[in-house]
Amino acid sequence: MRVALLGCGTVGGEVARLLTEQADELAARAGTAVELAGIAVRRPDKHPELPPELLTADAEKLVTSDDVDVVVELVGGIEPVRGWLVAALKAGKSVVTANKALLAEHSADLFEAADAAGADLYFEAAVAGAIPLLRPLRESLAGDRITRVMGIVNGTTNYILSAMDSTGAGYAETLDEASRLGYAEADPTADVDGYDAASKAAILASLAFHTRVTASDVHREGIADVTASDLAAARGLGRTVKLLAICERVTDDDGVESVSARVHPVMIPRSHQLAGVGGAFNAVYVEADAAGELMFYGQGAGGAPTASAVLGDLVAVARNLVAGGRGPRESAHAALPVRPMGQTPTRYHVSLSVADRAGVLAQVAQAFAGHGVSIAAVRQSDVGDRASLVVVTHQAPDAALQSTVDEIAKLDVVHEVVSVMRVEGEDQ
Amino acid sequence: MRVALLGCGTVGGEVARLLTEQADELAARAGTAVELAGIAVRRPDKHPELPPELLTADAEKLVTSDDVDVVVELVGGIEPVRGWLVAALKAGKSVVTANKALLAEHSADLFEAADAAGADLYFEAAVAGAIPLLRPLRESLAGDRITRVMGIVNGTTNYILSAMDSTGAGYAETLDEASRLGYAEADPTADVDGYDAASKAAILASLAFHTRVTASDVHREGIADVTASDLAAARGLGRTVKLLAICERVTDDDGVESVSARVHPVMIPRSHQLAGVGGAFNAVYVEADAAGELMFYGQGAGGAPTASAVLGDLVAVARNLVAGGRGPRESAHAALPVRPMGQTPTRYHVSLSVADRAGVLAQVAQAFAGHGVSIAAVRQSDVGDRASLVVVTHQAPDAALQSTVDEIAKLDVVHEVVSVMRVEGEDQ
Repeated sequence: MRVALLGCGTVGGEVARLLTEQADELAARAGTAVELAGIAVRRPDKHPELPPELLTADAEKLVTSDDVDVVVELVGGIEPVRGWLVAALKAGKSVVTANKALLAEHSADLFEAADAAGADLYFEAAVAGAIPLLRPLRESLAGDRITRVMGIVNGTTNYILSAMDSTGAGYAETLDEASRLGYAEADPTADVDGYDAASKAAILASLAFHTRVTASDVHREGIADVTASDLAAARGLGRTVKLLAICERVTDDDGVESVSARVHPVMIPRSHQLAGVGGAFNAVYVEADAAGELMFYGQGAGGAPTASAVLGDLVAVARNLVAGGRGPRESAHAALPVRPMGQTPTRYHVSLSVADRAGVLAQVAQAFAGHGVSIAAVRQSDVGDRASLVVVTHQAPDAALQSTVDEIAKLDVVHEVVSVMRVEGEDQ
Repeated sequence: MRVALLGCGTVGGEVARLLTEQADELAARAGTAVELAGIAVRRPDKHPELPPELLTADAEKLVTSDDVDVVVELVGGIEPVRGWLVAALKAGKSVVTANKALLAEHSADLFEAADAAGADLYFEAAVAGAIPLLRPLRESLAGDRITRVMGIVNGTTNYILSAMDSTGAGYAETLDEASRLGYAEADPTADVDGYDAASKAAILASLAFHTRVTASDVHREGIADVTASDLAAARGLGRTVKLLAICERVTDDDGVESVSARVHPVMIPRSHQLAGVGGAFNAVYVEADAAGELMFYGQGAGGAPTASAVLGDLVAVARNLVAGGRGPRESAHAALPVRPMGQTPTRYHVSLSVADRAGVLAQVAQAFAGHGVSIAAVRQSDVGDRASLVVVTHQAPDAALQSTVDEIAKLDVVHEVVSVMRVEGEDQ
């Protein structure tokens, strides 16, 4: 099997190295030799470490070359990559990609091209790096009904939140430190604003619910507004804050099913298994009707871990080539509607600084009741002439919770809304 | 696709139910209708809940019927099941089985028959129930080099050890309670003596290391000798005790590779992720060169979780039938030798009650040194006229550690060997 490699950075370099060093082992597992046919990079002269006869700057030509059976894409971004991959698939080449942004926007184009030509499309490395997560969702759980996928899928934001939790430092300061240590990119926008996690949520929701979900369907909030006060409030309640991707199958009162996908900071109990996932690790919870609760944990990024996922996909393509079969196709038969965030049921934790006098709790409670939001727990404590009031709600539509918080912020008796955070992973 | 179901107990009943209730959903995912062709049970008259026209007592005839494409085997045990499945595979029927004992002894027979006829053999449900573990090992990590698989793969023993840890009660008493609550079978031998876990270790080691490993290659110790003192000793050191299946790739000083597979009680730090896995849950750690550390967690047994794994396999078989391909075959090309337990490197925790006088530590330390075992840590404390001495070793061949303990037990200054337990999951 002849492989065209597009992109040769951290992950691509590792893939090229393993394809060469473990050639015998891979051939034994794949049932055929797996060899590099060419490597497309922007500047071939910048890669003296690679065999010059393999290098080219012309990716477009390489991907449809007669000498190529499968294209491994590690360039990233939408264009011109989308065009290359569609052309490759139409020419009957299978594709292995780690490109979450592309899959979250244009997976339908790719699957259609793959289907028309009978080619494979694998993308295990696109979500949660080395963790074998997509294959279980696409294949192992194909006979089950997944109800929820919830996880930490971005290492940079998890590193920052873990560090804020342990040091008590603020967001800006911790981001600077993360950049200095190489845990955040020079332009951290894609990570800290949740774009990376939202792409992954779209891919996970599509696979889990057999429905086309794109990144624009995903409600997205990053971590830039998470404060040291939020983490202190969480700590005081035995909780911590994580940026989670949450994909749910929601059934409304009329029995109508829909899909919800969102990325935002969440307060979870410290006893929750996701709370213990520190640093740059990823972990994803899956709940299914028959299987119950499952968790997958491992390294979410990095050259070697991501290369492991790419090579696993390459072996699958090779086995299919040898045996004459096909990998799993797009599964979008359920075609459920995507529920807007405002109608998605969530729970809120609200921490307020209020006047220390009688009747305050009644006013605040009235604001919740007026929006149809039921309160699960209240904790009040005095701090000088002010009082701290912490409210945790039951589930309510997110828009009702937002409106409640807006109204509470305007109450005379409320001095400050110290922290507002959604809550997951506890009994209702 | 027409399915023959062998056995209709807890898991089989759930498979039959889901095949019927989720028929449309499964057909959409599989690309073809998946229908029951027949159900073989020992006593058809005992199953009034099943359609009588599907029931038969003649499994042998059913598995080779022209009307059957795939056989789902949930009977368990070696014979007559082995004969049925080999006959089915030879007749070109694919097989989905949860039979760990059979796979741990005769997987070579089954794979050979499957290969000769071009049929599929899937067995996700055989290890760790609902947890998608075998598909990641066989497929996702096919391009990586797995060095270690370590996990809790038996729910009954995990329930008992978790309960002993939290109540301080002894083994016999806790086993009785577990039986009463339905967490242990009337005859708990297969679980508590480690046979079930050893079968699973053989399957995991075979897949992870591309080597045929059978149950008889697995060193096996159960939990019947774990005492309340062992758990107390562990607790005092911030550790707990778990029954682990441990499969390792070992390279000796001459660079010769071998495989080690063992099941025995192990002391692990409470901070280790496996320590938090309670009750009837399973969790498996996988370490691979490129992927790094991975963990899989979920329900290891039960009707619905196991049925989820069986249905995932059925959908895979159906997709292969539709697309004309094949599932992964046996991968035994590495054919590494299996290292005997005595030569496997382990670490010991030894807790002794010793005479409270000078020179005791010197005598004990001399015994370790005499067997070439290096000591990592020692803790001594007085209890009346006796002293408690706790030793944790560095890695050494298991036989050397055993011999050391035997010698120490005979020392005059040693009143009692309170607890001997292997240690995992800590820095050396």
